[in-house]
Amino acid sequence: MHVLILGAAGMIGRKLVGRIAAEPMILGQSIDRLTLADVIKPPVPDALASISKPLALDLAHPGIAEKLIDERPNVIFHLAAVVSGEAEADFDKGYTVNLDGTRALFEAIRHQGQKSAYVPRVIFASSLAVFGTPFPETIGDDFLTAPLTSYGTQKAITELLLADYSRRGIFDGIGIRLPTICVRPGAPNKAASGFFSNILREPLVGKEAILPVSDTVRHWFASPRSAVGFFVHAATLDTASVGPRRNLTMPGLSAVVSDEIDALRRIAGDKAVALIRVEPDPVIEKIVTGWAQRFDAKRAHDLGFKAEQSFDEILQVHIEDELDGRLA
Amino acid sequence: MHVLILGAAGMIGRKLVGRIAAEPMILGQSIDRLTLADVIKPPVPDALASISKPLALDLAHPGIAEKLIDERPNVIFHLAAVVSGEAEADFDKGYTVNLDGTRALFEAIRHQGQKSAYVPRVIFASSLAVFGTPFPETIGDDFLTAPLTSYGTQKAITELLLADYSRRGIFDGIGIRLPTICVRPGAPNKAASGFFSNILREPLVGKEAILPVSDTVRHWFASPRSAVGFFVHAATLDTASVGPRRNLTMPGLSAVVSDEIDALRRIAGDKAVALIRVEPDPVIEKIVTGWAQRFDAKRAHDLGFKAEQSFDEILQVHIEDELDGRLA
Repeated sequence: MHVLILGAAGMIGRKLVGRIAAEPMILGQSIDRLTLADVIKPPVPDALASISKPLALDLAHPGIAEKLIDERPNVIFHLAAVVSGEAEADFDKGYTVNLDGTRALFEAIRHQGQKSAYVPRVIFASSLAVFGTPFPETIGDDFLTAPLTSYGTQKAITELLLADYSRRGIFDGIGIRLPTICVRPGAPNKAASGFFSNILREPLVGKEAILPVSDTVRHWFASPRSAVGFFVHAATLDTASVGPRRNLTMPGLSAVVSDEIDALRRIAGDKAVALIRVEPDPVIEKIVTGWAQRFDAKRAHDLGFKAEQSFDEILQVHIEDELDGRLA
Repeated sequence: MHVLILGAAGMIGRKLVGRIAAEPMILGQSIDRLTLADVIKPPVPDALASISKPLALDLAHPGIAEKLIDERPNVIFHLAAVVSGEAEADFDKGYTVNLDGTRALFEAIRHQGQKSAYVPRVIFASSLAVFGTPFPETIGDDFLTAPLTSYGTQKAITELLLADYSRRGIFDGIGIRLPTICVRPGAPNKAASGFFSNILREPLVGKEAILPVSDTVRHWFASPRSAVGFFVHAATLDTASVGPRRNLTMPGLSAVVSDEIDALRRIAGDKAVALIRVEPDPVIEKIVTGWAQRFDAKRAHDLGFKAEQSFDEILQVHIEDELDGRLA
C-alpha cells in the first residue's frame, strides 16, 4: 500500500508517521511506500527510511497535486493547512492554500480516475472552526456550519467538496473535526488556546505557566494520541456505514479549566499546581468564551472513534508519550 | 443607483426587471443605470430602455466579472446558475459556472474595493438544495447544510463565501434560499418538480395536466411574486440586524398536493380539477418524497420576508400576474 501524508512535518503529521513506524500494520495492510510532504521537508523515522520519500512542496503550486497523485497513493492523509490566525491575517494565502490547494488535490484525483479506475481513501483534517456562535448548550451532528473566520470557512467549504466528491465515487473521503488538542507538546505558543496545554505541560516539568482565563472556562479536548487514532480509524473503517455525510465531529472531553488543574494535582501534586500563575487577560478570555464548549459526537462515537474520558487520562497520555512515562 | 442583475433572462430575473419597470423606486432610490446580464441577451422593458444595458456573457469567462464590477454597481442580484440537473450531469460545467463564476464575481468586488472604497449589496439566489436527507419534521435555521447534489454543494459553498466576504466587509451580502416556485409560468417542463405548477397552471386555461405522485406529497412553496419580493427586500433591508449568518431560508407555504387541488376547486371549480389526470410515476414520487417538506423560517420572517399563507393566495397571484386577472 502507498500512503501519502500531506502536512507530515506538523505536530499531528509527525505523530501519525511515528505511529506507523511503531506499528507497521496499523492501517490493516503492509505499507510499501510512504510519501511525506509538507512546506518543509518532513523528518523520517529510521524504521521507515527505506520506504519513505520526504518532499518539501506547496500543494497550491500548479502541477504539484497532479504529480503527487500520478503516483496513485491508496490512502491520503491531508493535514496541511495555513493556520487560523494566518488565514485571517492573509486572505489570499488562506484561500490559496486551504481552499485552492485542497481543490487541486481533489481535482487531480478526479482526473487520475478518468485515466483508469482510482478511488483512494482521503482523510481530511477539518476543524471545529466550521462552527460559529451562537451555539446551543450541546452541539449535535445536525448543527449548521456557520464559521466566523476565513479558516473555518475554508474548512467548511472543503468539507462540502469532500462530501460531493465522495458521493460521486471520485474518492472515499472522511473529514475529521478535531477537538482542541491537549496536551500539545513543544514550547508554549501564543495561540489563544495555548494555555489549555501550557498549564499542564510546563508544571509537569517544574516550570511556571500562565492561566489567562477563569477556571470555569469550558472547552472540548482530546490528546494528540487520540487525534492520531482518529486518522488511523478513518483510514480503515468501512465507509459504507458512514453514508453521504462524510464530515464528523470527533468525540472529546468537555471539561473546565479547574478539571485540568484537579487532574494535575492528583497526578503531580500541589507543587505542580503552585506553578500555575493566574494572570487574567480579557482579550484571551473573550476569544475563548466564544468557542464551543460541548458536542454530542454521536455519529463518530457510533462509528467507533474514541477519545479520553477524563483529564487524568489526557495527562497520563502526555506523560507516557512525551515524558517517557516519568514525572519530574 | 446602478443595479446589476446577473441571470436577468431567467424567470425570476425577468420578473424582477418587470417589477423595477412598474415601480422605479422599489429599491428605495431612483435607478439611473441597469445592467442586465445573462448567457443570452436579456429582454428590456420599454420603460427601462433608456437606462438599461443588456449583455450576453459568461460570468465564468476570464475577465468578465472584472469588467462588470469596474462599473461599480451599487446593488448586484446574482440569480445566474447552471440548474440542478445539468450541474449533476456535467461536473465541470456546474463547478465552473456555479462556483468559479461566482467566486470570480466576489473576487472582482474585493479587488475593486482595494482600489477605492466599494462595498456593494450582493443578493445571491441560493437554494433549498443546500439541505439533504435525513430531515427533521421541520427544518429550522440551525440545520446543517449537507447537500446531496453537486448543485446543492455549489450553492452551499457560495453561501459560505458570501458570509465570509460579508463578515470581512468586502461586500454586504444576503443569500436567499427560495422555496419551490409555484405557479411557475410558461410551458410544462420535465423537471421533477414541474407537476406542482402544471396541475394548477394548465387546468386554469382549460388544458389537461398530469399528476405523477400521490396527493399527500408535502412540499414548500412560494409564488414568483413572493420570490421577487424576497430579492427586493434583501436589497433594501438593514443588514446590521442580520448578523454574520447571511444565508436565509425564505418563508413559504408547507402544503400537500391535495391543498393545491382544493384551492383550484374553490377558485376554478370542478371542471378545472377534472383536467388533472393521475398517472403515477414511481421515479418522480421517489425524487419528490426525498425533498424537504416544512421549514421554520423564523429568521427570515423576523427580518420581514413574506410569502403566501395558502394556495388560494398563490393561485390568485398567478391569475393576477399571468392571466390579467381573468379565468378562462
